[in-house]
Amino acid sequence: MPRMLKELRHVYGFEDVAIAPGTVTINPEMVDLSMSFDGVTLDIPVMASAMDAVVDPQFAIKMSKLGGLAVLNLDGIQTRYDDPASLFTEIAEAPKDAATELLQKIYSAPVQERLIGKRVEQIKKGHATAAVSVIPANTKRFAPMAIEAGADVLVVQSTVTTARHSSKSVKGLIFHELVKQVKKTPVIVGNTVSFDVTLELMEEGVHGVLIGVGPGAACTSREVLGIGVPQVSATLECAAAREEYFKTTGRYVPIITDGGIRTGGDVCKSFASGADAVMIGTPLAQATEAPGLGYNWGMATPHGSLPRGTRISVGTRGHLEKILFGPSHRTDGTENLVGALKISMGMAGAQNIRDMHKVELLYAPAIKTEGKIFQMQGKGST
Amino acid sequence: MPRMLKELRHVYGFEDVAIAPGTVTINPEMVDLSMSFDGVTLDIPVMASAMDAVVDPQFAIKMSKLGGLAVLNLDGIQTRYDDPASLFTEIAEAPKDAATELLQKIYSAPVQERLIGKRVEQIKKGHATAAVSVIPANTKRFAPMAIEAGADVLVVQSTVTTARHSSKSVKGLIFHELVKQVKKTPVIVGNTVSFDVTLELMEEGVHGVLIGVGPGAACTSREVLGIGVPQVSATLECAAAREEYFKTTGRYVPIITDGGIRTGGDVCKSFASGADAVMIGTPLAQATEAPGLGYNWGMATPHGSLPRGTRISVGTRGHLEKILFGPSHRTDGTENLVGALKISMGMAGAQNIRDMHKVELLYAPAIKTEGKIFQMQGKGST
Amino acid sequence: MPRMLKELRHVYGFEDVAIAPGTVTINPEMVDLSMSFDGVTLDIPVMASAMDAVVDPQFAIKMSKLGGLAVLNLDGIQTRYDDPASLFTEIAEAPKDAATELLQKIYSAPVQERLIGKRVEQIKKGHATAAVSVIPANTKRFAPMAIEAGADVLVVQSTVTTARHSSKSVKGLIFHELVKQVKKTPVIVGNTVSFDVTLELMEEGVHGVLIGVGPGAACTSREVLGIGVPQVSATLECAAAREEYFKTTGRYVPIITDGGIRTGGDVCKSFASGADAVMIGTPLAQATEAPGLGYNWGMATPHGSLPRGTRISVGTRGHLEKILFGPSHRTDGTENLVGALKISMGMAGAQNIRDMHKVELLYAPAIKTEGKIFQMQGKGST
Amino acid sequence: MPRMLKELRHVYGFEDVAIAPGTVTINPEMVDLSMSFDGVTLDIPVMASAMDAVVDPQFAIKMSKLGGLAVLNLDGIQTRYDDPASLFTEIAEAPKDAATELLQKIYSAPVQERLIGKRVEQIKKGHATAAVSVIPANTKRFAPMAIEAGADVLVVQSTVTTARHSSKSVKGLIFHELVKQVKKTPVIVGNTVSFDVTLELMEEGVHGVLIGVGPGAACTSREVLGIGVPQVSATLECAAAREEYFKTTGRYVPIITDGGIRTGGDVCKSFASGADAVMIGTPLAQATEAPGLGYNWGMATPHGSLPRGTRISVGTRGHLEKILFGPSHRTDGTENLVGALKISMGMAGAQNIRDMHKVELLYAPAIKTEGKIFQMQGKGST
Repeated sequence: MPRMLKELRHVYGFEDVAIAPGTVTINPEMVDLSMSFDGVTLDIPVMASAMDAVVDPQFAIKMSKLGGLAVLNLDGIQTRYDDPASLFTEIAEAPKDAATELLQKIYSAPVQERLIGKRVEQIKKGHATAAVSVIPANTKRFAPMAIEAGADVLVVQSTVTTARHSSKSVKGLIFHELVKQVKKTPVIVGNTVSFDVTLELMEEGVHGVLIGVGPGAACTSREVLGIGVPQVSATLECAAAREEYFKTTGRYVPIITDGGIRTGGDVCKSFASGADAVMIGTPLAQATEAPGLGYNWGMATPHGSLPRGTRISVGTRGHLEKILFGPSHRTDGTENLVGALKISMGMAGAQNIRDMHKVELLYAPAIKTEGKIFQMQGKGST
Repeated sequence: MPRMLKELRHVYGFEDVAIAPGTVTINPEMVDLSMSFDGVTLDIPVMASAMDAVVDPQFAIKMSKLGGLAVLNLDGIQTRYDDPASLFTEIAEAPKDAATELLQKIYSAPVQERLIGKRVEQIKKGHATAAVSVIPANTKRFAPMAIEAGADVLVVQSTVTTARHSSKSVKGLIFHELVKQVKKTPVIVGNTVSFDVTLELMEEGVHGVLIGVGPGAACTSREVLGIGVPQVSATLECAAAREEYFKTTGRYVPIITDGGIRTGGDVCKSFASGADAVMIGTPLAQATEAPGLGYNWGMATPHGSLPRGTRISVGTRGHLEKILFGPSHRTDGTENLVGALKISMGMAGAQNIRDMHKVELLYAPAIKTEGKIFQMQGKGST
Repeated sequence: MPRMLKELRHVYGFEDVAIAPGTVTINPEMVDLSMSFDGVTLDIPVMASAMDAVVDPQFAIKMSKLGGLAVLNLDGIQTRYDDPASLFTEIAEAPKDAATELLQKIYSAPVQERLIGKRVEQIKKGHATAAVSVIPANTKRFAPMAIEAGADVLVVQSTVTTARHSSKSVKGLIFHELVKQVKKTPVIVGNTVSFDVTLELMEEGVHGVLIGVGPGAACTSREVLGIGVPQVSATLECAAAREEYFKTTGRYVPIITDGGIRTGGDVCKSFASGADAVMIGTPLAQATEAPGLGYNWGMATPHGSLPRGTRISVGTRGHLEKILFGPSHRTDGTENLVGALKISMGMAGAQNIRDMHKVELLYAPAIKTEGKIFQMQGKGST
Repeated sequence: MPRMLKELRHVYGFEDVAIAPGTVTINPEMVDLSMSFDGVTLDIPVMASAMDAVVDPQFAIKMSKLGGLAVLNLDGIQTRYDDPASLFTEIAEAPKDAATELLQKIYSAPVQERLIGKRVEQIKKGHATAAVSVIPANTKRFAPMAIEAGADVLVVQSTVTTARHSSKSVKGLIFHELVKQVKKTPVIVGNTVSFDVTLELMEEGVHGVLIGVGPGAACTSREVLGIGVPQVSATLECAAAREEYFKTTGRYVPIITDGGIRTGGDVCKSFASGADAVMIGTPLAQATEAPGLGYNWGMATPHGSLPRGTRISVGTRGHLEKILFGPSHRTDGTENLVGALKISMGMAGAQNIRDMHKVELLYAPAIKTEGKIFQMQGKGST
């Protein structure tokens, strides 16, 4: 009896892949890491996630000075409370089983519009690039305020973003109208994981696309909603769309791999999968400069009726500069992320990010056999 | 030397797959979850398993009021004992290593026919839809009694059901005769996992097919008997048979994924695999309303000479309504299952269950690398 | 640059596969489990491994009475020592880290030829079928003694057996000469895992082939020597050779899956992979009747310079009859192995072992996600 | 919408594969293990890694006497300090969390050129073959000194070596010039994992190629840099290049699998993948003769700003001779590595290393299901 079965595409995450060394090698100091969004240039292709425990105005200033870009969440604690410091303490001190409920309560306070401009101004006073994030439903209202206050980059972000959204109550956000309205400001939109949606968003005129929906198997979106695409495959898909769009139109729209990045290895694999930049959360929540006091939580954690994710203890590890540039005494890949990227690109023979898109990726799933993990030892120095 | 090797089909379980977000998104409040079995309509496509620790008459009434359907087991404790309450206490209080033997003893008491009608009437008195389950060998005897007492849905269920059964002693149950005999009552039959059997059962005239035999790797059927098909593949197979039958005959016979569902993610993946409804055991055994007092066991556990499955402690978590509809403070996907399904369908761009059958499923096996599971953080809100 | 890479065949073990239920089901009591080796018929297709901790003459008598066949090792403790009882006690009482060295010492005593006949006679006095095992190097010397004493079945067994062996010192054993020499006695030879070797051995005239070399990933042969083939694939390969040989010659030579079987599920999967019988070690070492006093070790464990395997504590669980036929209160598949096989064959729709060779096998790898294993619950009864 | 996705090659490590037994078997004592590098012949194809915790002059002498070859690191402790003994004690006694920092400090002392000749002379005084290792940047300076002092084999080693290296500051090492310059001394170069690079290095005239970059999933290079190729696939690739080069030129250049080898099984699989020799670190660091006092660390561990790998406690297990040749009481494959190789080759039917390159390799991933690992028991003796 013939049957038509749905076919399942095999997809890959960071733990499933490895980068093959190149046939030429390059001295790390010759590697060029710069990238730009429609005129806003970064010296290092690293963005800090729009998470309340990661980015506040002071963090954003520091990140900008170091060559990267931090995104301030305009739908979070910073715009709901005048003085958020005590809230971070309260969250950090809450017992484990009360944390989700506390977050639900804290985030039920409304956003105060006057704080939007204030936060942007705080960043600009630090002579930094100000990037802000809003959810689609608030974009029309908040984006003009942020831009008026001096925001340099606008990020419109929700768990899953498409160019088309059906809703009974609100008229969906039309991205090409938004782009027109804020035209001097680059607009970065996400998250998506699909070739078609990436292409549609680029056709809407956006200046960057965030990649990543429920990337990990342990990811909350995947556990609770069944939805998620491992990051390597998501990045490969969307990078293919970027190339397609670039070939057709001549306009190059960077994509940013966002979610699930924990180590230097993950950073390197993101670029080898086609990313132009990475957006990092937890590793930066561990910086002394992060407001979360050694904790982190996702922006879906405080959801009123279906919270996803929990407050997690990430610890505090050292200054942001050390996490990004070392020097490090740690050997687990969680410090000197930028140094790791340079060395990795050197070994892979990639002089810049475009070169890194072309290196060979291997499917080498990391099956750890219990009690059998021996440390492998590097050869020579580099 | 040429050789003819048996080929092995690669099959998938919940933990192996993920749903890809759609190219359009839909507001969750626009999602329609209703489905029906030949005239019996459910507001939510969720059934409670015919397990003694899950469903008693009071539970069935509550479930019906919430829009779902609970199936009462007519071959279990409810029909063997007049007043089962003390038995549940005895089971819950038994030491772990005595539990299986105690269950074997309790289930060796005979079914009392007069209790069949009584249990159905208890449900009907609550103005609820009454669904009852019988094993094939008892169907001819018990089904008429249940229907006479007012049963609205008849479920004929054994570990593996086919349209054809060879036996020395008993004449097999002929499903098309049964369907004729009870003709105003929808008949749901299972369990199966095969395209051919699903098609044959539909040709016999049944009104629903239960999908699931030994779905998990840790499943007792698979450990003890070697038999089992992971749920996603089983559902994909049987859904293909349903489509084939629908295309040929114009009659749409729903299939119900039954077994191994623990989280909202599993529920969502069942529908993405082709299910019209899900049947849930353990997550509902955790409801305050469940008779099992925080324990659950399978209907093969009390088998006299080859028990499969054990009594497991599942705990008690809260009211049935909260498990189905939230709001929740838990973030592991075990509460607000219906809310999760709506949000998931919205992200996948599915307006109703038939749409959800068409979303993209990915093969993304969940290999957890020890000590490497970081929580992924959602973006924005939804 | 073109490259010629060695291709790797994907092979499967018990934990990788599952049996699909059939499109018809059969009442377990209608299942026929008998099989035979050239006139020696077994009521149940189960053999006890030629391991010293499993089989002694008394065990062999009991196994024969229950319808199976136990193989006595003629190169082990039973033929090296007149009265082995005290040695088993000594082994059982040795501290863990001294066990291998003690075994090396005990097995360095020479085989006493007069004990060969004596052990066979002990079995025959019990009115049982006497099967004995010798290693290839000792076959010419020991086999005639055993047969003279009444042995009914001769097993020639080493880790890897082929029809051709190169050696400086000894002239290899020629199987077709051996078969001729002992012509009234069925000769079972092994172990192998290869299509070609199985075919060659059958062409030599042997009456049974043992399948299994280093079947498990945790298997000593694989850890120490890198050599091993998972049992399902090994059985599939050799079953294909049996069919090929049967088609060509009309002679049916049974194959026996030997190694790595722990549960009823493994037994069932062996037959679904093409086995005519299974040889079982550890599960039978747990019988009250086994001489090992709750311990087991492989025949490569006492190797003088490269021991493989260790003494393991398996515990004592109950009488052999209960392990084979139940009834059982255990739910982990380690008791009532024969009952499990009958139920499994019934669900798969197989009336006899030849039918069971044709059921569908699925590739359903058992990836357990930590803390996520919920027990699956069976439906109805069977 | 069509899309061009980067394809991922599936690659394999030791834990993913197994060797299939041969269709003939060979007595282990008939197996020939010798191999040679352009005139320097080894009785056993085993090299000791150029790691400071493994090889000092005394160790090198012992290894040479046993038929293998140890490589002394000329960029490590032996050439930075006159009397290194106290440093090894200091490292061994450092608390765990201070070890990396201490190593960074110790390795920041400069190499003293006069110690290069001295160390080589120490080895030569022991009537042993002297092999030394230098990093590419130091080769032009140190290699002549070592050769002048009597070095027999020159190893040029870094994490990733190619025939072409881009650098701003230093003129890259030209291998064909080096080979010419030291022409009586075999030059072994590495590490690489690629077909093309292996071919290019052979075309440069080198006499051996080291295979292995970040072989394990837990490997530091892979964790920190994302770079790594599992050893089996790396060896298969480079062996294909060796065959290609041999077919074209008639010159046979051995390849050495280096990294991640822990057991006899790994050794055997290396040869079955195409290796002519293996280079071993940790298992030899466990020898009484190793200078590391029961500890080991990689040569990338002391990296100043991005250390990779840590000091690990490996313990001390017994004399080098026992680790290589037994006899052993251990059953985990970590002793009698050479005995294991001989038995494995015998079972696989390989008379010499070239034969071993042709045996069948299987893809048999080692998925361990928790609590389900039973020890497999060997059959007969060997």
